[in-house]
Amino acid sequence: MTTTTIDLPALAQQTTEGLAGGAPSQVSFTTGSRLRTGTNTTVDVAAGPHGFVIDEPAALGGDNIGANPVEHLLAALSACQIITVQVWAAKLGLTVEDVRVEARGDLDLRGFFGVDPAVRPGFQGIEVDLTISGPESEESYAELIRVVEAQCPVLDNLTAGVPVTARASVAGSA
Amino acid sequence: MTTTTIDLPALAQQTTEGLAGGAPSQVSFTTGSRLRTGTNTTVDVAAGPHGFVIDEPAALGGDNIGANPVEHLLAALSACQIITVQVWAAKLGLTVEDVRVEARGDLDLRGFFGVDPAVRPGFQGIEVDLTISGPESEESYAELIRVVEAQCPVLDNLTAGVPVTARASVAGSA
Repeated sequence: MTTTTIDLPALAQQTTEGLAGGAPSQVSFTTGSRLRTGTNTTVDVAAGPHGFVIDEPAALGGDNIGANPVEHLLAALSACQIITVQVWAAKLGLTVEDVRVEARGDLDLRGFFGVDPAVRPGFQGIEVDLTISGPESEESYAELIRVVEAQCPVLDNLTAGVPVTARASVAGSA
Repeated sequence: MTTTTIDLPALAQQTTEGLAGGAPSQVSFTTGSRLRTGTNTTVDVAAGPHGFVIDEPAALGGDNIGANPVEHLLAALSACQIITVQVWAAKLGLTVEDVRVEARGDLDLRGFFGVDPAVRPGFQGIEVDLTISGPESEESYAELIRVVEAQCPVLDNLTAGVPVTARASVAGSA
Protein backbone atom coordinates (compact mmCIF):
# COMPACT_ATOMS: atom_id res chain seq x y z
CA MET A 1 0.00 0.00 0.00
CA THR A 2 1.21 3.45 -0.88
CA THR A 3 0.54 6.22 1.58
CA THR A 4 0.55 9.62 0.03
CA THR A 5 2.10 12.54 1.85
CA ILE A 6 0.97 15.36 -0.43
CA ASP A 7 -1.72 17.46 1.25
CA LEU A 8 -4.36 17.35 -1.45
CA PRO A 9 -6.76 19.91 0.10
CA ALA A 10 -3.93 22.45 0.38
CA LEU A 11 -2.69 21.70 -3.14
CA ALA A 12 -6.18 21.96 -4.59
CA GLN A 13 -6.76 25.28 -2.84
CA GLN A 14 -3.40 26.71 -3.92
CA THR A 15 -3.91 25.56 -7.50
CA THR A 16 -7.42 26.98 -7.65
CA GLU A 17 -6.21 30.33 -6.26
CA GLY A 18 -3.28 30.35 -8.65
CA LEU A 19 -5.58 29.79 -11.62
CA ALA A 20 -8.13 32.38 -10.55
CA GLY A 21 -6.25 35.29 -12.13
CA GLY A 22 -7.97 34.67 -15.42
CA ALA A 23 -5.06 33.76 -17.71
CA PRO A 24 -5.23 30.45 -19.57
CA SER A 25 -3.23 27.64 -18.03
CA GLN A 26 -2.58 25.35 -20.95
CA VAL A 27 -1.01 21.99 -20.31
CA SER A 28 -0.14 19.37 -22.91
CA PHE A 29 -0.10 15.62 -22.50
CA THR A 30 1.62 13.36 -25.00
CA THR A 31 2.00 9.66 -25.68
CA GLY A 32 4.09 7.67 -28.14
CA SER A 33 2.72 4.32 -29.31
CA ARG A 34 4.22 1.72 -31.63
CA LEU A 35 3.32 -1.70 -32.94
CA ARG A 36 5.65 -4.32 -31.51
CA THR A 37 7.53 -5.92 -34.40
CA GLY A 38 6.36 -9.38 -35.30
CA THR A 39 2.99 -9.09 -33.58
CA ASN A 40 -0.47 -8.48 -34.96
CA THR A 41 -1.83 -6.09 -32.33
CA THR A 42 0.63 -5.59 -29.47
CA VAL A 43 1.23 -1.88 -28.91
CA ASP A 44 3.92 -0.45 -26.62
CA VAL A 45 2.95 2.91 -25.17
CA ALA A 46 5.23 5.51 -23.57
CA ALA A 47 3.75 8.36 -21.54
CA GLY A 48 6.50 10.37 -19.87
CA PRO A 49 8.33 7.96 -17.56
CA HIS A 50 5.54 5.39 -17.81
CA GLY A 51 5.23 2.48 -20.19
CA PHE A 52 2.44 0.01 -20.70
CA VAL A 53 1.12 -2.46 -23.25
CA ILE A 54 -2.18 -2.49 -25.10
CA ASP A 55 -3.20 -5.61 -27.02
CA GLU A 56 -6.22 -7.57 -28.22
CA PRO A 57 -7.50 -10.99 -27.14
CA ALA A 58 -6.91 -13.95 -29.44
CA ALA A 59 -10.43 -13.68 -30.88
CA LEU A 60 -9.38 -10.34 -32.35
CA GLY A 61 -5.97 -11.58 -33.49
CA GLY A 62 -3.87 -10.52 -30.53
CA ASP A 63 -1.59 -12.08 -27.94
CA ASN A 64 -3.73 -10.79 -25.05
CA ILE A 65 -0.80 -9.43 -23.08
CA GLY A 66 -2.60 -6.23 -22.20
CA ALA A 67 -6.09 -4.76 -22.02
CA ASN A 68 -7.38 -3.56 -25.37
CA PRO A 69 -7.94 0.03 -26.55
CA VAL A 70 -11.62 0.25 -25.65
CA GLU A 71 -10.89 -1.18 -22.18
CA HIS A 72 -8.26 1.55 -21.78
CA LEU A 73 -10.91 4.05 -22.82
CA LEU A 74 -13.20 2.76 -20.04
CA ALA A 75 -10.29 2.81 -17.59
CA ALA A 76 -9.40 6.39 -18.52
CA LEU A 77 -13.00 7.43 -17.87
CA SER A 78 -13.24 5.50 -14.59
CA ALA A 79 -9.92 6.74 -13.19
CA CYS A 80 -10.74 10.27 -14.24
CA GLN A 81 -13.99 10.11 -12.31
CA ILE A 82 -12.25 8.71 -9.23
CA ILE A 83 -9.52 11.36 -9.31
CA THR A 84 -12.08 14.11 -9.92
CA VAL A 85 -13.95 12.86 -6.84
CA GLN A 86 -10.73 13.11 -4.86
CA VAL A 87 -9.71 16.58 -6.02
CA TRP A 88 -13.18 18.05 -5.67
CA ALA A 89 -13.76 16.39 -2.28
CA ALA A 90 -10.54 18.11 -1.21
CA LYS A 91 -11.76 21.43 -2.60
CA LEU A 92 -15.14 21.07 -0.87
CA GLY A 93 -13.70 19.83 2.44
CA LEU A 94 -15.34 16.39 2.25
CA THR A 95 -13.80 13.14 3.45
CA VAL A 96 -13.97 10.16 1.08
CA GLU A 97 -12.97 6.73 2.37
CA ASP A 98 -13.46 4.69 -0.76
CA VAL A 99 -14.43 5.34 -4.34
CA ARG A 100 -14.79 2.83 -7.13
CA VAL A 101 -16.18 2.72 -10.64
CA GLU A 102 -17.50 -0.18 -12.68
CA ALA A 103 -17.68 0.71 -16.36
CA ARG A 104 -19.16 -1.12 -19.31
CA GLY A 105 -19.24 -0.34 -22.99
CA ASP A 106 -21.20 -2.12 -25.69
CA LEU A 107 -20.34 -2.22 -29.35
CA ASP A 108 -21.50 -4.08 -32.42
CA LEU A 109 -18.54 -5.68 -34.21
CA ARG A 110 -20.27 -5.18 -37.57
CA GLY A 111 -19.22 -1.54 -37.33
CA PHE A 112 -15.50 -2.11 -36.85
CA PHE A 113 -15.38 -4.81 -39.53
CA GLY A 114 -17.26 -2.61 -41.99
CA VAL A 115 -20.05 -5.03 -42.83
CA ASP A 116 -22.82 -2.48 -42.13
CA PRO A 117 -22.10 1.21 -42.72
CA ALA A 118 -25.08 2.12 -40.52
CA VAL A 119 -23.36 0.64 -37.45
CA ARG A 120 -20.83 2.91 -35.76
CA PRO A 121 -17.43 1.31 -35.02
CA GLY A 122 -17.16 2.64 -31.47
CA PHE A 123 -19.18 2.06 -28.34
CA GLN A 124 -22.88 2.71 -28.82
CA GLY A 125 -23.12 3.55 -25.15
CA ILE A 126 -21.14 3.45 -21.93
CA GLU A 127 -22.55 2.70 -18.47
CA VAL A 128 -20.76 3.85 -15.37
CA ASP A 129 -21.50 2.84 -11.77
CA LEU A 130 -19.73 5.04 -9.25
CA THR A 131 -19.78 4.22 -5.54
CA ILE A 132 -18.52 6.54 -2.83
CA SER A 133 -18.28 5.67 0.82
CA GLY A 134 -17.29 7.74 3.80
CA PRO A 135 -18.59 9.62 6.83
CA GLU A 136 -20.33 12.55 5.12
CA SER A 137 -24.06 12.91 4.54
CA GLU A 138 -25.72 11.45 1.47
CA GLU A 139 -26.56 14.99 0.39
CA SER A 140 -22.93 16.05 0.54
CA TYR A 141 -21.86 13.14 -1.64
CA ALA A 142 -24.76 13.71 -4.03
CA GLU A 143 -23.55 17.29 -4.49
CA LEU A 144 -19.99 16.03 -4.97
CA ILE A 145 -21.19 13.58 -7.64
CA ARG A 146 -23.01 16.38 -9.49
CA VAL A 147 -19.80 18.41 -9.53
CA VAL A 148 -17.76 15.42 -10.72
CA GLU A 149 -20.16 14.84 -13.61
CA ALA A 150 -19.61 18.43 -14.72
CA GLN A 151 -15.85 18.61 -14.12
CA CYS A 152 -14.44 15.23 -15.18
CA PRO A 153 -12.18 15.82 -18.23
CA VAL A 154 -12.58 12.40 -19.85
CA LEU A 155 -16.35 12.38 -19.31
CA ASP A 156 -16.48 15.80 -20.95
CA ASN A 157 -14.48 14.61 -23.97
CA LEU A 158 -16.53 11.43 -24.39
CA THR A 159 -19.99 12.93 -24.02
CA ALA A 160 -19.43 16.19 -25.88
CA GLY A 161 -16.76 14.96 -28.31
CA VAL A 162 -13.43 16.60 -29.03
CA PRO A 163 -11.84 17.74 -32.30
CA VAL A 164 -9.14 15.30 -33.41
CA THR A 165 -6.66 16.58 -35.98
CA ALA A 166 -4.99 13.66 -37.71
CA ARG A 167 -1.83 13.81 -39.81
CA ALA A 168 -0.72 10.66 -41.53
CA SER A 169 2.49 9.96 -43.36
CA VAL A 170 4.02 7.06 -45.22
CA ALA A 171 7.63 6.42 -44.35
CA GLY A 172 8.38 3.90 -47.11
CA SER A 173 9.87 0.48 -46.59
CA ALA A 174 12.12 0.12 -43.56
CA MET B 1 10.02 -9.74 -28.89
CA THR B 2 6.76 -11.58 -29.24
CA THR B 3 6.09 -13.30 -32.53
CA THR B 4 2.42 -13.85 -33.19
CA THR B 5 1.24 -17.04 -34.79
CA ILE B 6 -2.40 -16.09 -35.42
CA ASP B 7 -3.01 -15.59 -39.15
CA LEU B 8 -4.58 -12.15 -39.03
CA PRO B 9 -5.67 -11.98 -42.70
CA ALA B 10 -7.49 -15.31 -42.38
CA LEU B 11 -9.06 -14.30 -39.05
CA ALA B 12 -10.17 -10.92 -40.42
CA GLN B 13 -11.72 -12.58 -43.47
CA GLN B 14 -13.51 -15.25 -41.42
CA THR B 15 -14.79 -12.68 -38.95
CA THR B 16 -16.02 -10.37 -41.69
CA GLU B 17 -17.80 -13.25 -43.44
CA GLY B 18 -19.28 -14.42 -40.14
CA LEU B 19 -20.66 -10.95 -39.44
CA ALA B 20 -22.07 -10.43 -42.92
CA GLY B 21 -25.33 -12.26 -42.18
CA GLY B 22 -26.90 -9.07 -40.90
CA ALA B 23 -27.55 -9.89 -37.25
CA PRO B 24 -26.08 -7.62 -34.59
CA SER B 25 -22.91 -8.89 -32.97
CA GLN B 26 -22.89 -7.13 -29.64
CA VAL B 27 -19.84 -7.40 -27.45
CA SER B 28 -19.36 -5.86 -24.02
CA PHE B 29 -16.16 -4.67 -22.42
CA THR B 30 -15.90 -3.95 -18.71
CA THR B 31 -13.41 -2.53 -16.26
CA GLY B 32 -13.33 -2.24 -12.49
CA SER B 33 -11.40 0.66 -10.97
CA ARG B 34 -10.76 1.58 -7.35
CA LEU B 35 -8.87 4.22 -5.43
CA ARG B 36 -5.92 2.68 -3.63
CA THR B 37 -6.43 3.18 0.10
CA GLY B 38 -4.25 5.87 1.62
CA THR B 39 -3.43 7.58 -1.65
CA ASN B 40 -4.76 10.74 -3.21
CA THR B 41 -5.04 9.65 -6.84
CA THR B 42 -3.68 6.13 -7.34
CA VAL B 43 -6.26 3.99 -9.14
CA ASP B 44 -5.99 0.21 -9.60
CA VAL B 45 -7.75 -0.99 -12.73
CA ALA B 46 -8.82 -4.53 -13.60
CA ALA B 47 -9.84 -5.44 -17.15
CA GLY B 48 -10.41 -9.17 -17.48
CA PRO B 49 -7.07 -10.81 -16.63
CA HIS B 50 -5.19 -7.54 -16.94
CA GLY B 51 -4.35 -5.03 -14.23
CA PHE B 52 -2.71 -1.64 -14.43
CA VAL B 53 -2.33 1.54 -12.45
CA ILE B 54 -3.44 5.06 -13.32
CA ASP B 55 -2.16 7.96 -11.22
CA GLU B 56 -1.35 11.66 -11.38
CA PRO B 57 2.00 13.45 -11.19
CA ALA B 58 2.93 15.22 -7.96
CA ALA B 59 1.83 18.59 -9.35
CA LEU B 60 -1.71 17.22 -9.41
CA GLY B 61 -1.43 15.54 -6.01
CA GLY B 62 -0.43 12.06 -7.08
CA ASP B 63 2.38 9.59 -6.53
CA ASN B 64 3.14 9.39 -10.26
CA ILE B 65 3.28 5.60 -10.36
CA GLY B 66 1.27 5.39 -13.59
CA ALA B 67 0.24 7.51 -16.54
CA ASN B 68 -2.77 9.70 -15.82
CA PRO B 69 -6.33 9.36 -17.16
CA VAL B 70 -5.95 11.74 -20.09
CA GLU B 71 -2.70 10.03 -21.11
CA HIS B 72 -4.61 6.72 -21.08
CA LEU B 73 -7.22 8.38 -23.26
CA LEU B 74 -4.50 9.34 -25.77
CA ALA B 75 -3.03 5.83 -25.54
CA ALA B 76 -6.44 4.24 -26.16
CA LEU B 77 -6.86 6.37 -29.27
CA SER B 78 -3.32 5.69 -30.53
CA ALA B 79 -3.43 1.93 -29.97
CA CYS B 80 -6.87 1.77 -31.53
CA GLN B 81 -5.56 3.45 -34.66
CA ILE B 82 -2.56 1.12 -34.83
CA ILE B 83 -4.72 -2.00 -34.38
CA THR B 84 -7.25 -0.72 -36.91
CA VAL B 85 -4.38 -0.27 -39.36
CA GLN B 86 -3.35 -3.87 -38.75
CA VAL B 87 -6.82 -5.41 -39.08
CA TRP B 88 -7.76 -3.40 -42.15
CA ALA B 89 -4.37 -3.94 -43.81
CA ALA B 90 -5.07 -7.67 -43.33
CA LYS B 91 -8.55 -7.29 -44.82
CA LEU B 92 -7.20 -5.31 -47.79
CA GLY B 93 -4.19 -7.57 -48.37
CA LEU B 94 -1.60 -4.90 -47.61
CA THR B 95 1.72 -5.48 -45.83
CA VAL B 96 2.62 -3.08 -43.02
CA GLU B 97 6.11 -3.21 -41.54
CA ASP B 98 5.80 -0.52 -38.90
CA VAL B 99 3.10 1.74 -37.59
CA ARG B 100 3.36 4.33 -34.84
CA VAL B 101 1.30 7.15 -33.45
CA GLU B 102 2.34 10.27 -31.58
CA ALA B 103 -0.62 11.86 -29.83
CA ARG B 104 -0.98 15.16 -28.01
CA GLY B 105 -3.86 16.70 -26.13
CA ASP B 106 -4.12 20.23 -24.80
CA LEU B 107 -6.28 21.36 -21.94
CA ASP B 108 -6.70 24.46 -19.84
CA LEU B 109 -6.53 23.60 -16.13
CA ARG B 110 -8.99 26.40 -15.33
CA GLY B 111 -11.72 24.07 -16.60
CA PHE B 112 -10.95 21.13 -14.34
CA PHE B 113 -10.46 23.35 -11.29
CA GLY B 114 -13.71 25.17 -11.96
CA VAL B 115 -12.33 28.71 -11.98
CA ASP B 116 -13.91 29.59 -15.35
CA PRO B 117 -17.18 27.93 -16.35
CA ALA B 118 -16.57 28.88 -19.99
CA VAL B 119 -13.51 26.59 -20.13
CA ARG B 120 -14.24 22.91 -20.73
CA PRO B 121 -12.54 20.46 -18.33
CA GLY B 122 -11.42 18.04 -21.04
CA PHE B 123 -9.03 18.33 -23.93
CA GLN B 124 -9.85 21.25 -26.21
CA GLY B 125 -8.27 19.34 -29.06
CA ILE B 126 -6.20 16.26 -29.81
CA GLU B 127 -3.47 15.99 -32.46
CA VAL B 128 -2.50 12.63 -33.85
CA ASP B 129 0.50 11.85 -36.06
CA LEU B 130 0.31 8.40 -37.62
CA THR B 131 3.25 6.95 -39.56
CA ILE B 132 3.07 3.77 -41.61
CA SER B 133 6.01 2.14 -43.31
CA GLY B 134 6.20 -0.87 -45.59
CA PRO B 135 6.58 -2.01 -49.17
CA GLU B 136 3.22 -0.91 -50.58
CA SER B 137 2.57 2.17 -52.69
CA GLU B 138 1.84 5.53 -51.11
CA GLU B 139 -1.61 5.37 -52.67
CA SER B 140 -2.37 2.03 -51.03
CA TYR B 141 -1.39 3.36 -47.61
CA ALA B 142 -3.31 6.58 -48.19
CA GLU B 143 -6.43 4.51 -48.88
CA LEU B 144 -5.73 2.40 -45.78
CA ILE B 145 -5.44 5.57 -43.68
CA ARG B 146 -8.79 6.84 -44.99
CA VAL B 147 -10.41 3.56 -43.98
CA VAL B 148 -8.78 3.66 -40.54
CA GLU B 149 -10.10 7.17 -39.91
CA ALA B 150 -13.62 5.92 -40.64
CA GLN B 151 -13.38 2.60 -38.78
CA CYS B 152 -11.36 3.26 -35.61
CA PRO B 153 -13.69 2.73 -32.62
CA VAL B 154 -11.99 5.12 -30.19
CA LEU B 155 -11.64 7.85 -32.83
CA ASP B 156 -15.37 7.46 -33.54
CA ASN B 157 -16.27 7.80 -29.85
CA LEU B 158 -14.01 10.80 -29.31
CA THR B 159 -14.97 12.80 -32.38
CA ALA B 160 -18.69 12.01 -32.46
CA GLY B 161 -19.20 11.55 -28.73
CA VAL B 162 -20.94 8.66 -27.01
CA PRO B 163 -23.84 8.55 -24.55
CA VAL B 164 -22.59 7.89 -21.01
CA THR B 165 -25.19 6.70 -18.51
CA ALA B 166 -23.94 7.31 -14.99
CA ARG B 167 -25.34 5.78 -11.84
CA ALA B 168 -23.90 6.90 -8.55
CA SER B 169 -24.45 5.51 -5.09
CA VAL B 170 -23.31 6.31 -1.60
CA ALA B 171 -22.27 3.27 0.39
CA GLY B 172 -21.97 4.96 3.78
CA SER B 173 -18.96 4.83 6.04
CA ALA B 174 -16.81 1.72 5.67
